[in-house]
Amino acid sequence: MQKTAIQDQIGHNFCFGCGVDNPDGLQIKSFWDERTGESVCLYQPQAHQAAGPRHILNGGIIATLIDCHCVCTATGSALKKEGAKRSRKWFVTGSLKVKYLKPTPIRSPVELRAKIIEETSKKTVVECSLTSNGELCATGEVVAVKVPPSWLEEGSPDH
Amino acid sequence: MQKTAIQDQIGHNFCFGCGVDNPDGLQIKSFWDERTGESVCLYQPQAHQAAGPRHILNGGIIATLIDCHCVCTATGSALKKEGAKRSRKWFVTGSLKVKYLKPTPIRSPVELRAKIIEETSKKTVVECSLTSNGELCATGEVVAVKVPPSWLEEGSPDH
Repeated sequence: MQKTAIQDQIGHNFCFGCGVDNPDGLQIKSFWDERTGESVCLYQPQAHQAAGPRHILNGGIIATLIDCHCVCTATGSALKKEGAKRSRKWFVTGSLKVKYLKPTPIRSPVELRAKIIEETSKKTVVECSLTSNGELCATGEVVAVKVPPSWLEEGSPDH
Repeated sequence: MQKTAIQDQIGHNFCFGCGVDNPDGLQIKSFWDERTGESVCLYQPQAHQAAGPRHILNGGIIATLIDCHCVCTATGSALKKEGAKRSRKWFVTGSLKVKYLKPTPIRSPVELRAKIIEETSKKTVVECSLTSNGELCATGEVVAVKVPPSWLEEGSPDH
């Protein structure tokens, strides 16, 4: 398993899901599993992230985890291809689909595994599974769209 | 506009997005707009809910808002049909799709508008738009699945 998280290669990232700079965010960490070519993220849900009943993880948090893990996977893949070690994040989410297959327990860590199924100069399509205690609880697909760094600056005409 | 929020008709709800009982959640409020038949939710994003750059709202939070507003819309519609005033929430998210059309400013309130496009005894399909300052920033679709109250109890064999 890769030692440096993809998120630790992305500078100036205040993202709620994956930003190293956001102390109030989820601060997920994604690593390449060189054995399978997938990226892996382990996350321990927190008590306030409930779905309604207190023992089930919220679907919006699941969507957030899948979104950020997949976009970081797209970013990490681009970094690898360029042989770069550090980047400003330059992918944004174009679309997100999540299927909720069964309730996800809130007390156990969840494991997300993502793999790239399409990668062009403009976008990267990433599929993701979320398991808990070895059971598949949700699947997702993210279309991550490459944008110039200026796109992320306030007042940019690219918006 | 309806005076009581749909969420205030749902008891025992610790949901991160819409639970009245969750002090650390988003605590969204959804109301019927009787003029259009849609449900409406206004939400003021918070500074830590950023997308990466600090001035853009996080896509996972957008997914959470769409998910909860749509599931509450399905619940509210079922309540109306039954002539009931209060319920335990008995819909869960089967699937969620979000398209991100443009960056959503974090400093302005967002408006979500949802409408039911299919409603059977088993599921309700809800479409949703998210606008900021009058601009359409995201659209979503949620399939809300009806479950018995026992489904939401820990250790239920229905899971």
